[in-house]
Amino acid sequence: MATPIQQNLIDSNKVYASTFTSGHLALPPAKKYAILTCMDARIDPAAAYGIPLGDAHIIRNAGASAKDALRSLVISEQLLGTQEIILIKHTGCGMLTFGNEDATRLVRQNLGDGGVEELVAFGGDFLPFAELETAVKEDVEYLKQNKAIPDSVKISGWVYQVEDGKVKHII
Amino acid sequence: MATPIQQNLIDSNKVYASTFTSGHLALPPAKKYAILTCMDARIDPAAAYGIPLGDAHIIRNAGASAKDALRSLVISEQLLGTQEIILIKHTGCGMLTFGNEDATRLVRQNLGDGGVEELVAFGGDFLPFAELETAVKEDVEYLKQNKAIPDSVKISGWVYQVEDGKVKHII
Repeated sequence: MATPIQQNLIDSNKVYASTFTSGHLALPPAKKYAILTCMDARIDPAAAYGIPLGDAHIIRNAGASAKDALRSLVISEQLLGTQEIILIKHTGCGMLTFGNEDATRLVRQNLGDGGVEELVAFGGDFLPFAELETAVKEDVEYLKQNKAIPDSVKISGWVYQVEDGKVKHII
Repeated sequence: MATPIQQNLIDSNKVYASTFTSGHLALPPAKKYAILTCMDARIDPAAAYGIPLGDAHIIRNAGASAKDALRSLVISEQLLGTQEIILIKHTGCGMLTFGNEDATRLVRQNLGDGGVEELVAFGGDFLPFAELETAVKEDVEYLKQNKAIPDSVKISGWVYQVEDGKVKHII
């Protein structure tokens, strides 16, 4: 029995597939770039950042963390030929609202020590940040310093404003 | 001087923001679910999976890896109230085309030992997989067994077909 969420996926996809004409697109992104942005529900990268189907890798995680995205970015650059990274964090991000201690306490409270033990899979670091533009700059710097990303890859940092849909160039 | 990619972002976003009317949406996803899918350029989750702005977290990484997404999923469930995970891998995925040894060799060839040393940040594991539906089942099982994801969270696994735009329920 499908959940309402699953039924929405099935029904919506049926409509999408009925007019789908992009089966010819190649695996490597046509425009050779990767977008890294947040998983936040209020962001639609294709629409807000102007990305037609097939043009770019789109990586999304909690906070648009560069560290968390490193595996995907190395695959994007080294195996699939992308040459530019656009990193976009956003206003009102959940990652500005808690610290590692808060999150760990919550997991322990809800799921016990067994739950907390699972967090070692990501070093127990939820990668929260205290100031938005500083976090953008630090993540761009992290990628620029990272020896697994070639110096030839262009990297820029941006903020998306969930209040008005605008992007702002930071670095 | 903006790169052509950056200029496209600026120009496209100007158009998007000019008709933007969704500044009122709340931080937690309205429909309380998270989609985990691949960064592949040929996937537009909002359109293909039927996700209006504000409804769901959308997590994307190379291969729609559950392990790689664990931090984001725990934040989604524990801090932002989502109660269902929809995991969708896809046909023609790049992760089916190489192994860890191939990828590591390529990084060493292009970026030297310094590049390879950076891979420890993700344990040197690019998380490739050999068979698509098996990988979907294994990732769903990984999440079901993970004690940092409550048993109450519904988890299902799907395949998106890049050739015809259709999703298929696997588990």
